[in-house]
Amino acid sequence: MRDSHNIRLAVIPGDGIGKEVVAEGLKVLDAVGLKAETTTYDLGAARYHATGETLPEETLAELRGYDAILLGAVGDPSVPPGVLERELLLKLRFELDHYVNLRPVRLYPGVETPLAGDHSIDMVVIREGTEGPYTGAGGVMRRGTAQEIATQESFNTAFGVERVVRYAFEKAITRPRRKLTLVHKTNVLTYAGDLWARVVERVSTEYPEVATDYCHVDAASMFFVTQPERFDVIVTDNLFGDILTDIGAAIAGGIGLAASGNVNPSSVGSASWAPSMFEPVHGSAPDIAGQGKADPTATVLSIAMMLDHLGLTAEAARVEKAVADDLAGRQVAGITRSTREIGDDLAARVTG
Amino acid sequence: MRDSHNIRLAVIPGDGIGKEVVAEGLKVLDAVGLKAETTTYDLGAARYHATGETLPEETLAELRGYDAILLGAVGDPSVPPGVLERELLLKLRFELDHYVNLRPVRLYPGVETPLAGDHSIDMVVIREGTEGPYTGAGGVMRRGTAQEIATQESFNTAFGVERVVRYAFEKAITRPRRKLTLVHKTNVLTYAGDLWARVVERVSTEYPEVATDYCHVDAASMFFVTQPERFDVIVTDNLFGDILTDIGAAIAGGIGLAASGNVNPSSVGSASWAPSMFEPVHGSAPDIAGQGKADPTATVLSIAMMLDHLGLTAEAARVEKAVADDLAGRQVAGITRSTREIGDDLAARVTG
Ligand SMILES: CC(C)[C@H](C(=O)O)[C@@H](O)C(=O)O
Ligand SMILES: CC(C)[C@H](C(=O)O)[C@@H](O)C(=O)O
Repeated sequence: MRDSHNIRLAVIPGDGIGKEVVAEGLKVLDAVGLKAETTTYDLGAARYHATGETLPEETLAELRGYDAILLGAVGDPSVPPGVLERELLLKLRFELDHYVNLRPVRLYPGVETPLAGDHSIDMVVIREGTEGPYTGAGGVMRRGTAQEIATQESFNTAFGVERVVRYAFEKAITRPRRKLTLVHKTNVLTYAGDLWARVVERVSTEYPEVATDYCHVDAASMFFVTQPERFDVIVTDNLFGDILTDIGAAIAGGIGLAASGNVNPSSVGSASWAPSMFEPVHGSAPDIAGQGKADPTATVLSIAMMLDHLGLTAEAARVEKAVADDLAGRQVAGITRSTREIGDDLAARVTG
Repeated sequence: MRDSHNIRLAVIPGDGIGKEVVAEGLKVLDAVGLKAETTTYDLGAARYHATGETLPEETLAELRGYDAILLGAVGDPSVPPGVLERELLLKLRFELDHYVNLRPVRLYPGVETPLAGDHSIDMVVIREGTEGPYTGAGGVMRRGTAQEIATQESFNTAFGVERVVRYAFEKAITRPRRKLTLVHKTNVLTYAGDLWARVVERVSTEYPEVATDYCHVDAASMFFVTQPERFDVIVTDNLFGDILTDIGAAIAGGIGLAASGNVNPSSVGSASWAPSMFEPVHGSAPDIAGQGKADPTATVLSIAMMLDHLGLTAEAARVEKAVADDLAGRQVAGITRSTREIGDDLAARVTG
């Protein structure tokens, strides 16, 4: 897909532990030995307080020019809820049309799960990233009075649903089990659910090799805890995907290991191409920020996803193997390492 | 609250295992020795297929005359998704103004949890029951075309939020830990989330004894798996409550044990009074229907909630103790009992 091993990367460390994990991620990326040119953007809470800016238009335009974006985490209690999330993180996802939010849920050997018994967990949640209840549409009337009404709108389009569903089928046929589960709440959210169900049914006829089923979001959340083996590829809406992937992170060893890609799958050079953005699922965790306690593994796995997305599959595999090996040794070692120590160890493993 | 021990109960067994578990529930209720007058309503899939009716107006009017309603489960694959859910179950919840959907999540001694390690789980989820994304509002345009748009609307009112939040605070002060957690997604669903957050903050000033905090729904879902001890009373919206309580059911030993009450807390005799409705959290489970495999315990615990709601606290305690004792003996016994056998055993324990 790319013929040069030269990547231009925009880095947004963001807030809290975002900065710490990104530093380690870049250390590991460096160890891969690519010619990676990185530019750091100071978006996040500090910038917001200093200038009032969240994501200036010129910065957004500049970001479009990179091969990919690496993001740490955004959000801080000093900023009103929603400001950085909506005006920075979600704005990037929406403006760069990251319609595939790719979140593997995989229990690596050696990693402890909070679930009892033996589990073999290996699924990919494909969360729609640009519509559903995340558009921000809605409003408030008579705010602060006893007659206040607040609404939120979920928008779902055939265009938006079909493209992510197609991506999910394409992912499912590459996997040994070839199973795709639609997760929604069709019995209550009947309009949106009906659209999702019809699109999945229609597209499924083009993929007879893929076994397709359906699960309500409440039941799916339960099955993540009782029978995660049930799932291979899941396709779901933006909000359900948000919830499911946090449960997924929990069962696969914790939020410190969960990687994600906000992917715009359009081909390089096409009119709709834009850089994809890779980020750990965890947030900025202000409670442990600056203490070297955060696990940079999720960021490093997000970098592996990024390399894979950029067609650098061998490099991606090296990074993932470094993580897998490190995780396999953790229980044995039983020592607690700092953010930097884990980064150093992973970088050393990548160097080989 | 009630001076006679005479209750008039409407029973809607519904579909699938609903019929089986309700039969056992009534057996246990009978063993309590109250003068309970029960009338059965054949609402559900069979009635829908026979007459096209889901909940006729006259039936709804009649149901208003009972002290309480016991519901098994509704839903069947032969009926299009949403029809029975929206036009029967949710219609009852909305028309009878069941604004408190009360769902305890409690791990009884002797019950196995899918979580590793020791956990002491004892919380109550108070799910708003009459608004949010459950109103059915929304629509579809250009259905079946590439330009289709489907919307769902979440409606949230100060009136609706405040009354359930007050109920939650009243519940929290009666519990030893006196802790209330609002679960929402204020950083994305900013209009609805802001209303919920402001109402909780305002009402909290009237309950200085209650420690109040906030958790995003994705994080809360994760904490249900990793640190369920974190929660005491949760108040949340209709959809988030639906998801959380299924995870809650999973961690507390499975959907076969999870009880719920759709409560209209208005005082008997007041203009807004209507019968509350008690039902297991599980669905109709068509895959195991008619095989005597369903656990009626969730229905029996729902009956205990009903007795408590009707002011029959001693009777409620007897039923709950029967369940607790039965559960405590399960691991030891290690035998699998049929729906009827569990019902018989519980009834025998209640008789004493
Ligand atoms: C921070 C927040 C807006 C975000 C989301 O809800 O998508 C986060 O929870 C995630 O999952 O990436
Ligand atoms: C059957 C369905 C409409 C219902 C709901 O979503 O409320 C169920 O899941 C529940 O939790 O009682």
